[in-house]
Amino acid sequence: MSSEGEVRRALGAIVLPAFGRCVSSLNLIRAVRLSDSGVELQMAAVAMNEPEQHALKTRIVKELKKLPGIDKVELTFVPGRPSELNEISHVVAVMSGKGGVGKSLVSGLIAIGLKRKGYSVGILDADITGPSIPRMFGLTQKPSACAEGLFPVLSASGIAVMSVNLLLGNEGDAVIWRGPLIGKAIKQFWEEVFWGKLDYLIVDLPPGTADAPLTVIQSLPLNGIVIVSTPQELASMIVRKAISMAQQAHSRILGVVENMSYLYLGDIDRKIAVFGPSRGAELARDAGAPLLAQIPIDPNLAALCDSGHIEDCQLDAVKKLALVADLLEK
Amino acid sequence: MSSEGEVRRALGAIVLPAFGRCVSSLNLIRAVRLSDSGVELQMAAVAMNEPEQHALKTRIVKELKKLPGIDKVELTFVPGRPSELNEISHVVAVMSGKGGVGKSLVSGLIAIGLKRKGYSVGILDADITGPSIPRMFGLTQKPSACAEGLFPVLSASGIAVMSVNLLLGNEGDAVIWRGPLIGKAIKQFWEEVFWGKLDYLIVDLPPGTADAPLTVIQSLPLNGIVIVSTPQELASMIVRKAISMAQQAHSRILGVVENMSYLYLGDIDRKIAVFGPSRGAELARDAGAPLLAQIPIDPNLAALCDSGHIEDCQLDAVKKLALVADLLEK
Repeated sequence: MSSEGEVRRALGAIVLPAFGRCVSSLNLIRAVRLSDSGVELQMAAVAMNEPEQHALKTRIVKELKKLPGIDKVELTFVPGRPSELNEISHVVAVMSGKGGVGKSLVSGLIAIGLKRKGYSVGILDADITGPSIPRMFGLTQKPSACAEGLFPVLSASGIAVMSVNLLLGNEGDAVIWRGPLIGKAIKQFWEEVFWGKLDYLIVDLPPGTADAPLTVIQSLPLNGIVIVSTPQELASMIVRKAISMAQQAHSRILGVVENMSYLYLGDIDRKIAVFGPSRGAELARDAGAPLLAQIPIDPNLAALCDSGHIEDCQLDAVKKLALVADLLEK
Repeated sequence: MSSEGEVRRALGAIVLPAFGRCVSSLNLIRAVRLSDSGVELQMAAVAMNEPEQHALKTRIVKELKKLPGIDKVELTFVPGRPSELNEISHVVAVMSGKGGVGKSLVSGLIAIGLKRKGYSVGILDADITGPSIPRMFGLTQKPSACAEGLFPVLSASGIAVMSVNLLLGNEGDAVIWRGPLIGKAIKQFWEEVFWGKLDYLIVDLPPGTADAPLTVIQSLPLNGIVIVSTPQELASMIVRKAISMAQQAHSRILGVVENMSYLYLGDIDRKIAVFGPSRGAELARDAGAPLLAQIPIDPNLAALCDSGHIEDCQLDAVKKLALVADLLEK
């Protein structure tokens, strides 16, 4: 006789080709009831028409009958909405009052670091008017959709991504929306996207302390915020505004990341403080949080981001940024 | 007998110490009527109590009586609102979908270039949540105010500046406002600030294509837009959104500026393409406008911005950016 766990594992491993994700990652199993001779299942039928349901059922029955003691499989499809199916353990927002300091880069590198540690990870690109994530990860396909919601697009290493740029006809198209619409889009990316089961959802915020960060802080169950800055004093002055906003909202600041810390010229072994001396430690002190990483200016990194191969990044910072997982356990 | 022009010139040159500006720059003269033995004047009494009006009147009468044929001066003070007194010949917005590309730097350098050519110039810092202009120009004093509006703060070289950071108790304070409030603040900076007579008002926009740029495009009589980008492909992709927004709004794009084009190391005479090869010419072609300038990454420039001495900048780009004046005449 098989246990419920064995049934769930066998069922969960079945991959749905349309989404490139398995049943368990999409969190489609709604109920498993074992009886003497078999199993009764309820499964969410998201974005599946009847022939697709039928085909999936055939595969499931075949797989489960391989298990000892399972002779009969009764499978019922039930409707499923993202709000019922999503199980996201941790939500981390990446924020900075200042634009162009590398929030998207840091969001991407945190996600990559966590993924390399074996976690399931998603990125919600909340930068509605200036979304950079799809380009960095080389994503151009349109998200699948059904009446209940949208499916994230998967990166090469399996990071689930949702971004307004995946929905536009042309990535250079402008999204000319006022604040309330932007807030609505972010809420939809949270409520109407089939994220499924995720250990970590990284939210890449736009610059400023206006609608988008406000919406994220007020509507998403944030577990922590990572602050990004650069050495320039002018930048750190504006980043302090983001820290002040996070503190006013009683959000937990997990750590500070300094981007563009220095330029390293390997051939003459020289470090150049292009934007002035580091202010990361000082900013971390003000934020009451550790300095997680200092990322150098690196033409290779810029090229990886431009060409959609950020997942090939071998910088030390990737490992350091994955420490947010440990910080969240504290 | 003196002419009206002579009276206006003599009167206009009188400096109001409280604002560090002269009567003509604030555009306070409302009417001049010459008679056989003297002159009747109407002047806006902004932010002046009765003793101040009296003191000013004494100075004016004394100055004007030096003119030939002026024996009698009748001066009436009338109320004046910014909407009646402001005469701004050209409004130029500096825009970029992307954050951190150097919009504020370019806004500042355009203003400095035009000022050096002898024009009267103001900067409206429309980046409400991430204002950089006061820090670059070393401005910390609070703007004067009266019931009818606010007075811009003057930079060392006499550029009139209004920014939300001049109004905050602490420059690191966060302005946590949703879009409608941000739009309102920008409109107030336009309608309720005593800009007086300006040849050029430069509007420094925040990143994105949301509330702030929309408000500026819809509510301010823009004569042209300058687009700012960096060589990174990712940046130019997002800057294309700003170009697309400007084109949809039928705004005139005056030119494109590429910032952080390269890093020049003088001691080893080497140019380093830190953010990849230049994409300025390509972007300018897409925008249907000239490439106005390429600004190098320059630790000295960063230091001037951080220390409030941007007006000491001797980069060639300052002269090139002042060409917007010629472009606007075409």
